Amino acid sequence: MRKLIAFTIVSVDGYFAGPNGEIDWFKGEHSDEEKEFSDEVSKKAGLLLFGRTTYEMMKSFWPTPDGMRSDPVMAEVMNRMPKIVFSETMKPEKDGPVWKDVRVLHDIDPEEIVSLKKHGEGGITILGSGTIVQQMERLGLIDEYQLMVVPVILGTGKYLFKDVKRLNLELIGTKVFRNGRVLLTYRPKA
Amino acid sequence: MRKLIAFTIVSVDGYFAGPNGEIDWFKGEHSDEEKEFSDEVSKKAGLLLFGRTTYEMMKSFWPTPDGMRSDPVMAEVMNRMPKIVFSETMKPEKDGPVWKDVRVLHDIDPEEIVSLKKHGEGGITILGSGTIVQQMERLGLIDEYQLMVVPVILGTGKYLFKDVKRLNLELIGTKVFRNGRVLLTYRPKA
Repeated sequence: MRKLIAFTIVSVDGYFAGPNGEIDWFKGEHSDEEKEFSDEVSKKAGLLLFGRTTYEMMKSFWPTPDGMRSDPVMAEVMNRMPKIVFSETMKPEKDGPVWKDVRVLHDIDPEEIVSLKKHGEGGITILGSGTIVQQMERLGLIDEYQLMVVPVILGTGKYLFKDVKRLNLELIGTKVFRNGRVLLTYRPKA
Repeated sequence: MRKLIAFTIVSVDGYFAGPNGEIDWFKGEHSDEEKEFSDEVSKKAGLLLFGRTTYEMMKSFWPTPDGMRSDPVMAEVMNRMPKIVFSETMKPEKDGPVWKDVRVLHDIDPEEIVSLKKHGEGGITILGSGTIVQQMERLGLIDEYQLMVVPVILGTGKYLFKDVKRLNLELIGTKVFRNGRVLLTYRPKA
């Protein structure tokens, strides 16, 4: 079984975005150290999942010359990797140039996610996409949480662990970055 | 100036207690490794601050034979250290045997806290007492956050960073415990 991994950037107080989706508190501060790390991680992925918002952001960056220059390894992985975007309304044909190997799903069907886990190789990684993470966690589908904790208290915003049930976790990894970010990796406790 | 330090046990999703004040998710799981650590930390403290709930819990444990047996170093520190408890209604005389060196303050007066910081020696540590931490943080009085992150998602409860303003932090320390707890130490960024 492939693992479903949620990689999410969160504030110390657990928000993945400000109240209006603001991400200024983490965007543009991707250090070389983090790049190296995410390059390594991304190589192990086999499939990327996105919500519409994160997808649009990624699509407007990675396939462009700016994206390639910024981090060629990541750009190559992002552009090559199979991608699924969850959107009720999106039709790739009408939404500008199609990013390579993108499938649109209109809702989260737990059986379909389990089927994805059973077939293919490499991890299935949800990048950002807090609302997708929320829905997947309510359905008990997430096998691993990678929380990149940014040293800021936002005080308000979109809360990652909203309306979820109590869940005991096991800490399986930590990594401290020089810019003060801490990656905490957990899996649900059996 | 003495530092005002908030040492708070929190869930991964940022709660310091369940909706009805439940602390079963961390109580009784104080490992030897954590004891050693908290013994070291407590020796550096000069004054302890509590809210009423934490105070009652601490008072019913540390001065008793069970408390002494459980962790003699901590018991000695807890019993000897000057303590302030914030409570609107509490009168020590009427609330059972008085713990040694306890002052009751009926509200949080920022000037009084600043005055405490200016005089005396050793850190001023708020132990637990989430509602006191909240009030102190809204007043911008906290110099250091020591967040002991317990590997559990509670999903609901009393939220530590409620109604606070955005605050950039600096990560000044991390410590990973074998039981999966992670201590993240931050200070407000200048």
